[in-house]
Amino acid sequence: MNTRFLDACWGKPVDRTPVWLMRQAGRYLPEYMRVRSNCTFLDLCKSPELAAEVTIQPVDILGVDAAILFSDILTPVEPMGMRLDFVPGPVFENPVRTMADVERLRIPQMEEDVPYVLETIKILRRELAAKVPLIGFGGAPFTLACYMVEGKGSKEFAQIKRMMYAAPEVYGALMDKVTAMDMEYLNAQIGAGAQAIQIFDTWGGILAPCDYERYVLPYTTRLIGGLDRNDIPVIHFVKGAGAILDIVKKAGGDVMGLDWHVNLGKARDILGPGMAVQGNLDPTVLYAPKAIIEQEVKRILDENAGRPGHIFNLGHGILPTVPPENARFMVEAVHRLSQK
Amino acid sequence: MNTRFLDACWGKPVDRTPVWLMRQAGRYLPEYMRVRSNCTFLDLCKSPELAAEVTIQPVDILGVDAAILFSDILTPVEPMGMRLDFVPGPVFENPVRTMADVERLRIPQMEEDVPYVLETIKILRRELAAKVPLIGFGGAPFTLACYMVEGKGSKEFAQIKRMMYAAPEVYGALMDKVTAMDMEYLNAQIGAGAQAIQIFDTWGGILAPCDYERYVLPYTTRLIGGLDRNDIPVIHFVKGAGAILDIVKKAGGDVMGLDWHVNLGKARDILGPGMAVQGNLDPTVLYAPKAIIEQEVKRILDENAGRPGHIFNLGHGILPTVPPENARFMVEAVHRLSQK
Repeated sequence: MNTRFLDACWGKPVDRTPVWLMRQAGRYLPEYMRVRSNCTFLDLCKSPELAAEVTIQPVDILGVDAAILFSDILTPVEPMGMRLDFVPGPVFENPVRTMADVERLRIPQMEEDVPYVLETIKILRRELAAKVPLIGFGGAPFTLACYMVEGKGSKEFAQIKRMMYAAPEVYGALMDKVTAMDMEYLNAQIGAGAQAIQIFDTWGGILAPCDYERYVLPYTTRLIGGLDRNDIPVIHFVKGAGAILDIVKKAGGDVMGLDWHVNLGKARDILGPGMAVQGNLDPTVLYAPKAIIEQEVKRILDENAGRPGHIFNLGHGILPTVPPENARFMVEAVHRLSQK
Repeated sequence: MNTRFLDACWGKPVDRTPVWLMRQAGRYLPEYMRVRSNCTFLDLCKSPELAAEVTIQPVDILGVDAAILFSDILTPVEPMGMRLDFVPGPVFENPVRTMADVERLRIPQMEEDVPYVLETIKILRRELAAKVPLIGFGGAPFTLACYMVEGKGSKEFAQIKRMMYAAPEVYGALMDKVTAMDMEYLNAQIGAGAQAIQIFDTWGGILAPCDYERYVLPYTTRLIGGLDRNDIPVIHFVKGAGAILDIVKKAGGDVMGLDWHVNLGKARDILGPGMAVQGNLDPTVLYAPKAIIEQEVKRILDENAGRPGHIFNLGHGILPTVPPENARFMVEAVHRLSQK
């Protein structure tokens, strides 16, 4: 098996910089669209054979160094008692607003409530055995709580912030419950065979630094501390956290995911040599001519300046209208330009 | 006249920290809604008596230390030849995509094409003479170009980034023209009586640091360098720039606007004692109970630690559903807690 990705997570030397792309199994690939044309997004998440198939597609098509489970961060939230739909963005019909709403939430039994996730992982481990490692993932408690309280995506996140400020006991009870669920969910993924875990805190960057430290960090720290890590590296990706990396580091992950709003070299200086990083190409660069893609890949590799512990990735998910050929070229450029 | 705001822009001592709120003339005020109920948003921008009336409302109602011209950053873009509508967000029917599109754009004659803006400023200077200073404003060239190229708000800004990467000569020609227009527009505001200028770069934070430096900074620097500044301070606000303040500083503004994603004290350490700052309360804090509003005001004042050159503000515009009473309480708290 290609161990470049796992080696880089632990800061070990690698022959070439490993690379994968967030949302690499997705709509930009005609092969994905072919599978997806026969079922809904949620059906696809819940069909282990199909989910495994689309998970593997980018490994074969792009030549990436890791696969990531095809699923959605809200998958384990639905069996908590939240009615989920995609229109196409996620919507909960019954958002959480009161202590009674929090009390009604149940913590799923993972083997019974999300068996398809664990089954997908088991299939993938068999099928990827000679290829690349499998990354499992979940939303950070705060990001999951954002969706549960807002009921959908939001620009201002006024509902959850109102709850934080005006009803801290409701907020705390919700976050306790979501964190407990998340811990069981990610540990179930590890139990089923996930070889690394990425925690997506898509909305962690919407807060002031002191609010992140007060309302988010304790829960992510508890979550990471409660994972059956052993030799399982944890990638912690907080979008929009470029100015608070020193605070985010305290959560205890092994690898810091970086969006494209920070200089990767400066981020490494802040984080220190003990922490690996993952990132951080602007996803829209994949719309550019190849000469520009190559120039930007080289720039990021230069910013890293040969330090061990760098996994190349986009700074956010690949966009649905990117030509697959450009994604493949980027992967090839990372490997070629980083070759020792 | 209350000179607290202007004094703080120049880093001079003040008796209390001056405060105003971005979008302080706006929908959260019933007094504004009363005026607005009889005309469209664009009509209001183009009616000097009415625009002046809503500009003054928050000075009287909230007790803020500065007024800001009621207008829209796209006002001077329309007479460049762009067909503008608000639905309710701004939309251009004829987005700029090619060199021919750029060549068709004209640079407005400000006295003829936006006379209402200059007339509003003249009325305001008379009516505010015994009250507070008047801030004029414009969009940064990049933010204006984003709207002109995308044709509307965007999540990914793929069109303008594509242009930047794949057609740099078109991008450069557009930015040259927008910067020239912007310079004339802001100088016309200064000529009409604006006592400070705020440049809003709402979208400056969407880029990687090196792309900001390459594609945005040169134009904003040229703009600021070309203003008839004399004793007119320039506030430069780039949203989402918390991790690149050292780069943004190079544009040459007198005051750095800060969104709420940075710690104000750390930002001041990065910027140094020669540059004032403006900010940076999370706008959603105004939904919180008064005890929390007071606590957060105090926290930001504490982060500033008595350094001269701090103008209190929100980190972004006030939200339309905030109770005016909470905004008034915030202003009062800033004055009370910062009193020497």
